[in-house]
Amino acid sequence: MSENPLHLLMNPQSIAVVGANNVPTKMGTIQALSILKDGYKGKVFPLHPKEKTVLGCKAYASPEDLPEAPDLAILIVPGKTVIPLIESFGKIGTKRAIIITAGFKETGAAGQKMENELNEVARHYGMRFVGPNCMGIINSQIFLNTTVLPMDKEPGLLGFASQSGTYVTQSLPALRKRGIRFSKAISLGNEANINIVDALEYLGEDEQTKAIILYIEGIRDGKRFLEVARRITPHKPVVAQYVGGSASGARAGLSHTGAMSGPDFLYNGIFKQAGIIRADGVEDLYANGWALATQPPIKGKRVGIMTNSGGPSTTISSVCDSVGLEVPRFSEGLQKEIRKHLQPHASAANPVDLTFDVEVQKLAIKIPEIMMNSGEIDAMVLHGVMMTGYLREIYPHLKEMAGNMSLEEFLKFGGPVLPETFELPRTYNIPFLISSFFDYEDCYTQGYLDNNIPVFPFPEKAALALGCLYHYKQIKERIPRKEEALPEINPLAADIIRQAKQNKQKALDEHAAKQLLACYGVPVTKEELAETAEEALAAAAKIGYPVALKACSWQIMHKSGKGLIALNVEDELQLKKEFQNIQKNAGKKTPVLVQEMLRGNREFLAGITRFAGFGAGVVFGLGGVFTEIYNDTTLRLAPLADVDVQEMFADIRARKLLDDYRGMPKVMTDKLSYIIRTIGNIALLYPEISEIDLNPIMVCEAEPVVADALIVLESKP
Amino acid sequence: MSENPLHLLMNPQSIAVVGANNVPTKMGTIQALSILKDGYKGKVFPLHPKEKTVLGCKAYASPEDLPEAPDLAILIVPGKTVIPLIESFGKIGTKRAIIITAGFKETGAAGQKMENELNEVARHYGMRFVGPNCMGIINSQIFLNTTVLPMDKEPGLLGFASQSGTYVTQSLPALRKRGIRFSKAISLGNEANINIVDALEYLGEDEQTKAIILYIEGIRDGKRFLEVARRITPHKPVVAQYVGGSASGARAGLSHTGAMSGPDFLYNGIFKQAGIIRADGVEDLYANGWALATQPPIKGKRVGIMTNSGGPSTTISSVCDSVGLEVPRFSEGLQKEIRKHLQPHASAANPVDLTFDVEVQKLAIKIPEIMMNSGEIDAMVLHGVMMTGYLREIYPHLKEMAGNMSLEEFLKFGGPVLPETFELPRTYNIPFLISSFFDYEDCYTQGYLDNNIPVFPFPEKAALALGCLYHYKQIKERIPRKEEALPEINPLAADIIRQAKQNKQKALDEHAAKQLLACYGVPVTKEELAETAEEALAAAAKIGYPVALKACSWQIMHKSGKGLIALNVEDELQLKKEFQNIQKNAGKKTPVLVQEMLRGNREFLAGITRFAGFGAGVVFGLGGVFTEIYNDTTLRLAPLADVDVQEMFADIRARKLLDDYRGMPKVMTDKLSYIIRTIGNIALLYPEISEIDLNPIMVCEAEPVVADALIVLESKP
Repeated sequence: MSENPLHLLMNPQSIAVVGANNVPTKMGTIQALSILKDGYKGKVFPLHPKEKTVLGCKAYASPEDLPEAPDLAILIVPGKTVIPLIESFGKIGTKRAIIITAGFKETGAAGQKMENELNEVARHYGMRFVGPNCMGIINSQIFLNTTVLPMDKEPGLLGFASQSGTYVTQSLPALRKRGIRFSKAISLGNEANINIVDALEYLGEDEQTKAIILYIEGIRDGKRFLEVARRITPHKPVVAQYVGGSASGARAGLSHTGAMSGPDFLYNGIFKQAGIIRADGVEDLYANGWALATQPPIKGKRVGIMTNSGGPSTTISSVCDSVGLEVPRFSEGLQKEIRKHLQPHASAANPVDLTFDVEVQKLAIKIPEIMMNSGEIDAMVLHGVMMTGYLREIYPHLKEMAGNMSLEEFLKFGGPVLPETFELPRTYNIPFLISSFFDYEDCYTQGYLDNNIPVFPFPEKAALALGCLYHYKQIKERIPRKEEALPEINPLAADIIRQAKQNKQKALDEHAAKQLLACYGVPVTKEELAETAEEALAAAAKIGYPVALKACSWQIMHKSGKGLIALNVEDELQLKKEFQNIQKNAGKKTPVLVQEMLRGNREFLAGITRFAGFGAGVVFGLGGVFTEIYNDTTLRLAPLADVDVQEMFADIRARKLLDDYRGMPKVMTDKLSYIIRTIGNIALLYPEISEIDLNPIMVCEAEPVVADALIVLESKP
Repeated sequence: MSENPLHLLMNPQSIAVVGANNVPTKMGTIQALSILKDGYKGKVFPLHPKEKTVLGCKAYASPEDLPEAPDLAILIVPGKTVIPLIESFGKIGTKRAIIITAGFKETGAAGQKMENELNEVARHYGMRFVGPNCMGIINSQIFLNTTVLPMDKEPGLLGFASQSGTYVTQSLPALRKRGIRFSKAISLGNEANINIVDALEYLGEDEQTKAIILYIEGIRDGKRFLEVARRITPHKPVVAQYVGGSASGARAGLSHTGAMSGPDFLYNGIFKQAGIIRADGVEDLYANGWALATQPPIKGKRVGIMTNSGGPSTTISSVCDSVGLEVPRFSEGLQKEIRKHLQPHASAANPVDLTFDVEVQKLAIKIPEIMMNSGEIDAMVLHGVMMTGYLREIYPHLKEMAGNMSLEEFLKFGGPVLPETFELPRTYNIPFLISSFFDYEDCYTQGYLDNNIPVFPFPEKAALALGCLYHYKQIKERIPRKEEALPEINPLAADIIRQAKQNKQKALDEHAAKQLLACYGVPVTKEELAETAEEALAAAAKIGYPVALKACSWQIMHKSGKGLIALNVEDELQLKKEFQNIQKNAGKKTPVLVQEMLRGNREFLAGITRFAGFGAGVVFGLGGVFTEIYNDTTLRLAPLADVDVQEMFADIRARKLLDDYRGMPKVMTDKLSYIIRTIGNIALLYPEISEIDLNPIMVCEAEPVVADALIVLESKP
């Protein structure tokens, strides 16, 4: 495994900056200042064609003039100068670059051409780069910040790989209010060279990074993404937002970073397969990522809620339920102990409600400690701790009464901040989240934030974050995946495909498709192909009535509603009539498939589709009449291990149908799993197959059998 | 219609405050200060047993000593003094009170008793009150604030009825950052007297209030709630959060305000029926309520997005799609016009991306005006306007370069704030929302906030709020509801129920249930009751084979899986055998229902259940095998108009099944609607019926027929 290109790029000993000057409104200047002022200790070389010094540093006219080859070059320059500059840096031996400049692939064909040339030049010199069309990077460990906004001085714990520059820069002031700080952040831009998978891999290996968040408009290398993410998620949580799955999202992404997006259900499936937690918005991405980065693992689902106010605790309780957590009623013993510290009318049952009271000792220390010490909770949310925030609010009203004392004096009324407040969660090592309507404006919320205890501005948000911790517990506990060896090419199956290609078929007919499936042990209907009514009669006699008749030709990919199928054919007489009917409706002599009439009690579907960059996606779900009603399907990328399929079973809403249900026996899920894994393998073995569609897979008593099958071949010659 | 009790309570000419003194840490004192300092112009009379003056006002020892009967008494006193005080105020003629004091119903039986007594006393004197166990009220129009935190000086537009006091007090600092200001807010507490329906009605009539939000833990008078809300929502938007629908939420609410909650699907149905938009959390409640209160109605679904940054605009686009809005690609003509103002590589297609640029003139005025003027959009989101917020951020880096000028001087670099920025949306009268990572810390976001243009801290939130505006457009456009007259009591139906009650039955048997339904024209299976095999044979001969046989006794409410049903009985021989089988499995001689064997292609369900305070809830959804798989049902309160049922049809995910689908004809929805409305009416006519369960309603070709029916009678004697 070659070293990740970001190791060097994120940790340069020396940096050349091209595009900064001494004019403070210039973006390049502002970015150079971020490097110079935020605490980076390496060497910084500004390049400028005319200036002797830039921002107080000696400036150099060109890369050739530099005293040494810098580890990293940062380019904030007009588009047409990018390639020559990269070439010059390449020549002197610089191996990493960040290209901020926009106007490449995201603008259309001409930009794409320029981006290709850029890539060529970089490859020639073995140079790896981030961008173009990006905002650069942050490495808080070495205080390196190449973006347009200053970063927080205290290094953070959250790693971020983003296909948006804004989300690592413009958002910094909003993040600061929530105490959220990056360990490393990478704005990837057009990903001409280094892409989000490289960034994910890098953050996965980075020790400073305790959780990873991803903002995704489209992934170019889906297979590697899955492989890398799957390596990381068992030991480090990953949260991702994906916005390219809708029509407008896809179009906006394309014009933003030239991202090629894919359908939402593809990404949904891959995230699940990889053990990535999906976020619906960028707020949740940050907030839940930060909770995961800062909090110890949650060991169970029991949440304790401490509050001085019933509304927030009721909201938190309600949302906890909705994310699979519990707010257990405390044991009588624990309630008794808690009640000692409460007003007589206050509730000790959980939520524990102090009722309106700003006394920190009870609310934030004494009672929480009793709760944590009880063994009755696995996580805790605390709402309502406040002191200077509250005092500042009421100061205008009380000022006169307080002898017109200054605000500063008045704020001292709350007494000194009690440091135990912030030590408590560490002592008991359980997740501990704060809900508060204050952020840095209160001495206690400030204390929590500074101690990496997340403070959520609305109560439901704290519960949602706990839900995320609980979700990650389930990801960590996933059964390890054992990938099986691919089966071999089967001569008969290969022959079926070869013949079809020779005939210039765009698909296999149903019978051929099932024969191919049968080569790999997939259970299919008993059936025979009949060219004439006589052959059909003979076949039916062999199979046994009732039978189904189906026109069978690769050209008829979708047979239903056209009079090309006859079900429940009871006897010879009916068979002859239906055979003729099908011939008539087909409009020409067409072979007919005589098929056993399955008596199923449940119908599922399975299939494969290919996605550029991702390989074969295997779909499983509810089949039959309800297929388009509920769209109850789930996807994973091939190859599938049995655990993947078990998770697919758990994904669908109709999962109860797989069990014994309303007198129907439990489905033989081992056989069903075999079918699903096998079509994934077939897709990997035969690249000529572009699509497989098994619908329905009929469950006969308990046994799944493929009742209909479509295999589409690649349309490319 | 009697006047709403809140008219006087919210607009008192004079207020007596009991529980304030001259000690600034006392809650009563802080609340009295809110009244005295926030600008209220009426008379304020503190009551105190000893003090001569309280907070600079002359104090009175008791109500009897007051110079006049105040319009409103506010009590922040120990629990045991509440009732005597209310009595005293009643005697002098005070007609309204706010009881802040807690320790009543929410604490259990003793508290409930005290609350009942309190109610008795108040009723005796014709006094109406809010509370107990509440935080009081805010009427920003007359600058009256009885809560523990100061309110904003500028009157607001958003009305709030809350079963949490915190959400009208503790949250004020958080709301201020978002520019959200209440018109009127009412913390309802235990609702011993005035309840949330009164508050909703009051806010509906209040002209200052442009949109209403509700925080609900449980509604006591569900019928009136629906009636009142239904009157309001066609002309004023209502958003509600309900948190009592889960186990923990219900328990927390009970100990908070003694609220009796109901299942989530009940509230979901009522909200839909009433035209109330549901919010998942309190943040969305405030934010979306504020957008609805401040923005003009949205006329269509086309959203224009203007940005200086691709990430937020892609996020906004993606979320717009998910809430039913569109981000249309602009016409070539419009793009051409916009492109004049853009960098060559920037996108003009929508989202319009200026790329990183803080020039307000283009970003916030010039291009938005072109967009609004084009007629190609119905609403707009703008991301990225910033000036002093950004300058403040980069100041530490640029300070030295700028000759160590002061921050104040530095902030002037952006030039004066351009007032056109805030006038623009008013000129074009379309919804206009801001996405920004700054709040009051930037001169532009501040300007927007002060001009009632909502600023959302994360881009997805702006899109979600637009989705809410679009949702409200659909609510306003609902077909007006015409309620039909209830049918009359049917003598045969009444007799069936009377007989069952005489027999002390807890339910009707299937046959009796269907007879009752048939009295009201509900189509049911052809069937006859047979006591003997001979009777069964005769019945089958009349009905025609195949038939279904079912054990028929009110004691067997759920027949499946017990060998008490035989389907597809083909002939006499089989009938005799199955008849005996059923007798054997029943364990005693049991009548058997001989029923036509319906050939259905789709199965639905309908039913009614009663909920305390709400009357009869009518449920409709997918029936048959998939009932418990997808729980795809929806609810409305009886009586139902046809439009209610049409909305129920649109609610279920399987709505496609009602149409022509996969060769099946469109369901006769007029007949299905009739069945659903009729069981609602039957529930209203016969209070003895506690539950009706029709599952399945089989669709035969296109025609719905009730294939199985259960009618449960009230278990009360």
